[in-house]
Amino acid sequence: MKAKVHITLKGGVLDPQGKAIAHALLSLGFAGIGGVRQGKYIEIELAERDRAKAEAEVDAMCRKLLANTVIENYAIELES
Amino acid sequence: MKAKVHITLKGGVLDPQGKAIAHALLSLGFAGIGGVRQGKYIEIELAERDRAKAEAEVDAMCRKLLANTVIENYAIELES
Amino acid sequence: MKAKVHITLKGGVLDPQGKAIAHALLSLGFAGIGGVRQGKYIEIELAERDRAKAEAEVDAMCRKLLANTVIENYAIELES
Amino acid sequence: MKAKVHITLKGGVLDPQGKAIAHALLSLGFAGIGGVRQGKYIEIELAERDRAKAEAEVDAMCRKLLANTVIENYAIELES
Repeated sequence: MKAKVHITLKGGVLDPQGKAIAHALLSLGFAGIGGVRQGKYIEIELAERDRAKAEAEVDAMCRKLLANTVIENYAIELES
Repeated sequence: MKAKVHITLKGGVLDPQGKAIAHALLSLGFAGIGGVRQGKYIEIELAERDRAKAEAEVDAMCRKLLANTVIENYAIELES
Repeated sequence: MKAKVHITLKGGVLDPQGKAIAHALLSLGFAGIGGVRQGKYIEIELAERDRAKAEAEVDAMCRKLLANTVIENYAIELES
Repeated sequence: MKAKVHITLKGGVLDPQGKAIAHALLSLGFAGIGGVRQGKYIEIELAERDRAKAEAEVDAMCRKLLANTVIENYAIELES
């Protein structure tokens, strides 16, 4: 099973990298750009075949290692 | 409309950050971990409301600024 | 003149990427590893030749764009 | 001993993040900006007190885990 994890800064946290991209797109002539936010995307191959167990396992990975939950949100998607 | 862009290293390109995460997960006691790959995830708010035009625009953004297409792939998803 | 900017998470802010590297190094057999912290490193070529002006300019860049000063510290080094 | 490691993309490798920052700085009114390159900065606390051994150890860490030496360069600095 493959887990796809999105880690993004929480709404209130400034995102300099997203801001740089927004400014750069505007200066390259792209119009109608609102906010840009940059996050991390992590794909993990799992041997676990039980969906509920896989989700619980990846949730633990996020809380223990992958995300700083004070400033970041995470979302987990499973693909069999 | 919101564009969600995933930028990932191409298959053949070594990914030290993904490798570090895989080793770390194993050392924390998570078993059954296959490969881990880390990429970037970018969300862009667009004023454009035409789906085809929005996709073409974001594709141009990826080629001109967001991705290094020699070593990275990108995928675009639109959400209205 | 070239500016070298180091952007690092403040002391109290958890650093999942640094933690992943530390665990990975230990699991690869490297011993005697204390904390690991990961930051960003940015090199900027400047036309400005006056050292004080260059420093003030790069300081403004950090505050306006490059760093999130709520959670990150930055340090500027100039090389002529 | 503390090791400071700089990991930067090799000269020939396109750096989208650096390019985004350069465009953003220009659009914010900063003039006289030449190229911008973004890399990673990693600090590692080491128990090792012998300088030569510490350097060899960190060099091995870079080759085995921290850098993708096909597309990245690394530089090691030791601070006692």
